[in-house]
Parts: sequence; C-alpha cells; structure tokens
Amino acid sequence: MTYIDFFKELGKQIIALNRYFGNKIASQEFETNPFGDVSVFIDKKAQEIIVESIIKQSIKCSLLSEESGFMDFGQKYPLFIVDPIDGSLNAKRGIPYSAFSIALAYSQTSDSMTEAYVLNLSNSDEFFAIKDKGTFLNNEPIQKLSIASEIASIEGIKRQTSLDDLKNIFKSFHRIRSMGSVALDLCYLGLGSIDVFFHIQPSRIIDYAAAKLIIEETGGGVFEWGSKTPYIAPIDTSKDKPFWALSDIKKLDYFYNKIYSGGVV
Amino acid sequence: MTYIDFFKELGKQIIALNRYFGNKIASQEFETNPFGDVSVFIDKKAQEIIVESIIKQSIKCSLLSEESGFMDFGQKYPLFIVDPIDGSLNAKRGIPYSAFSIALAYSQTSDSMTEAYVLNLSNSDEFFAIKDKGTFLNNEPIQKLSIASEIASIEGIKRQTSLDDLKNIFKSFHRIRSMGSVALDLCYLGLGSIDVFFHIQPSRIIDYAAAKLIIEETGGGVFEWGSKTPYIAPIDTSKDKPFWALSDIKKLDYFYNKIYSGGVV
Repeated sequence: MTYIDFFKELGKQIIALNRYFGNKIASQEFETNPFGDVSVFIDKKAQEIIVESIIKQSIKCSLLSEESGFMDFGQKYPLFIVDPIDGSLNAKRGIPYSAFSIALAYSQTSDSMTEAYVLNLSNSDEFFAIKDKGTFLNNEPIQKLSIASEIASIEGIKRQTSLDDLKNIFKSFHRIRSMGSVALDLCYLGLGSIDVFFHIQPSRIIDYAAAKLIIEETGGGVFEWGSKTPYIAPIDTSKDKPFWALSDIKKLDYFYNKIYSGGVV
Repeated sequence: MTYIDFFKELGKQIIALNRYFGNKIASQEFETNPFGDVSVFIDKKAQEIIVESIIKQSIKCSLLSEESGFMDFGQKYPLFIVDPIDGSLNAKRGIPYSAFSIALAYSQTSDSMTEAYVLNLSNSDEFFAIKDKGTFLNNEPIQKLSIASEIASIEGIKRQTSLDDLKNIFKSFHRIRSMGSVALDLCYLGLGSIDVFFHIQPSRIIDYAAAKLIIEETGGGVFEWGSKTPYIAPIDTSKDKPFWALSDIKKLDYFYNKIYSGGVV
C-alpha cells in the first residue's frame, strides 16, 4: 500500500485554489511562517486542506510543512514533508507555474524518502515517484527526452546575486530559464525538458523533497553545489546548502567539467 | 464584427497539439523558416490549421507567419500576424509555457493593429484585446494586479549575453524570471503578474504583435530599449530592435530612472 492515492486526493482539493491565483485575495497576508516567509491566503488554505485530511482519515504520522513547521499526529513516522504551494510568489502574482509538493520519509535525512508527489497547479501535470519503482507523469512511466540543445534553469536570481556566480552557467548553455518553482523545475528536469538545474541560494528541504525523489527515480541526480557528491539533506526547518541537479547522472563528469572547470564559484 | 471568434476557433484546434509537447514527435525537424529558425512538427501542424481555416472560411486577407513569411489570400488587408507556437523551444521540450499568438493589422506598422489574441497552450488562459475596448482574460475584462514587490522578466538570455547588460536589471528587482515565451510574458505583464519585461535581443514582430496590443489595452506600454519612446515596429520578417515594456505606463519615469540612470547599456 502506498500513500499516492492520498496525495492525489489532496492534489484535487488544492488545485481548486488556483481560481484565486493572480487575484488580490490570494495575497492577503497572515503571520510569518517557520521558514521566515510571510504566509498568504492561498498558502494557509492549502495547509488547512492537508491538516484536515490527515485528521479526517486518522493517519498516524508527523508533518513538516512550510506553513506550520513540525506537527505531530500520533507518531513520528511516516513523516510527510510538504510545501502546500511551491512557487507561492508565482501563484500570488498569477504567473502560471506553481505546485503542490508532498513526500514521505522514514528518518531525518532525505535519503529515507520512499514516495513523492508533485502536482502542477497551473496545468494539472501530476508527477509521482516510488523508491526503486520509477517516476510517473499522469500515471504513465515517464519518457525522458534527450535533445541536443542544452537548457539550464536557475532558481534564486535576486538583487544580491553575484554575477560571477552566473557567468559560467550563462556561457555553458544554449538557453537559460528562471521559472520560480523549485519543485516543478526538478520535475521537468526529470522529464528532460531541462538539462541542468542550479539552486544558487541556500535551499530548504520542503521545496525540493518530493521532486528530489522524482528526479532520482528518472535516472537524474542532485549534488552538492560545485561538487560530484550526492546531496543528502537533513529534514528540518533550517536553510541548508545550495545544490545543482542533472537530468541524466551519466552526464555528471561532462557538466561538472563544463561548468566548474574554472573552480567552484 | 470582429475576428475574435475566428481566433478562438483556431485556438481550440491548436491547443490540441499540446499532446505532443515534450514528446519526440514534437521535435521532428522540417526546413528552415523565413526567420532563420528550424521548423518542427508542432509548428508546421499549427501553421496548417491556420492556413486551412482561412481557405475554408474564404477570408480575404494576407498572412505574416513565422512558418511561411507573407502569404496572400486575395487582398492585402486585413493582415494577420501569426506565431503559431510562441515559445516553440518550451513546447518541444515540455516546459509548460508556450502560446498561440495572432493579431490583425491594417498597415505595415504595429500601430495599425486593431485586434489581438493569445492563448496559453499549457493552461488555456485566453487573452484578447480590441483597440480602445480593452483586454479580456477568459472573456472577463482584465483586472490588473498591483503589488509592491517588483518582478522583471527577461527574454533572450543566452551564451552571448553580456553580463553588463543584465547587471542593472538584476539589481533593480525583487525577483527575476526568464520563461521563454515573449507573447505570454507580455500578457502576464498586462495582468500585473510581472512589472517590467526586457527583450534584450533584437525582436521579431510575429512574437509580440498580439501581446503588444494586449498589454497596451491594459494601460501598459512597450518602449524602445533604454528609451521613453513608444516602440512602433515595422510589420515584416526582419529582426528589429530590442525593447522593454511596462505593466503600468504611469511608472515609466520611475523605472526608467531606476534601470537606465547609469546610462543605456
């Protein structure tokens, strides 16, 4: 038995919130969440859907969510790692690229994840992965694209970003994207839509937990920034390291040499 | 009488092609088009839908399309300016952000456009504008958002891009996006999802014709690069100037001073 059907039920409820995306209502502010961001109406509503569903179905578990931090529902594991709306700024602003993300772990590190689910709240693309069983897109085993022109996606370009950090990346790819949802970028990386993903700021497990298993189960991988070491992250509310990820781990040496050959920026 | 219903009919047929997006079939290559890009299966199919519909409905007009250049269907005007799939690379790769774009002009410059239609081929968002009558999103008059945090979108970051060109832009905004469809970026600019759009490479009228009228009819504007001069473009197959665009023309001085105060890059 898996929790995938439960995740799909949550997805069906949460995607209904997209009628508020790009409306003023979406952006009504609530308190600051445990990760230091301001929660808005749509984040709160999505969180309520999840908590109410766990209670209603009497699931014994705990929950790590962007909105609430850790919550205990009777036992420590399974632990659900949730970002009710990843790409929350996009959702507030009406940029059609945000996702509901939920993963299941059995310890306090990311290598214990066994199930993962990401729903694109704009177009209903539904990704899920089960450890050692592969990744599915809209219930079909994923068919990874392999196309010669190389596209990179960068998460976290902002005012403070050093241009030196970006120089090698810009020069190494055919095109650059910066879309605004870590979870979706990693899922489309899994599909081969993107070749390499760069999280240039310190990352938060809740954003990428589910998508990390999804990309890994397609033959891709997530690595420490500027390194060939697989990235295993603690499951907590801290901001952890930046990282980079590949659609195809067989290209690790190729891309490492291309991007980081001049040293790690 | 307007052509909006005709545009919607075309949209219904073209959006059905999104079942190929991100599949190998989408990327089968045909000849190089009049703009110098390689046409692929989905571009060709979308073009066929448009041409067949014009013939079937005996519409006397001409057509400027990315796929065919100019075509004559019995009279010079109305002139339809079409990008069958804008964000074609995204569509090929399965990145869910591409659009069908069609506009109507009555001379060889962009200030003669009277009707415009853009359909988001990923989530069905349907934008249209009629000169002096406003812009509509999914048949409702558009409600422009106004939010304090400022987002810029940049089209055309690639290998050859000078980082100096981007420095002031990066430093001037809360967040940066680079999504890969000029037409959609300008439509969401019209919605207020994005505050400023930068087309840093020479532009092509077919990409942005429809969206230019759409953004202008919301109270936004399109300007020559590094200038406060409204951008009026020739309607032809040449590559013209880079440009920038604003969600709200009342903020022209504010953003001009913020971004170009150190001189035009």
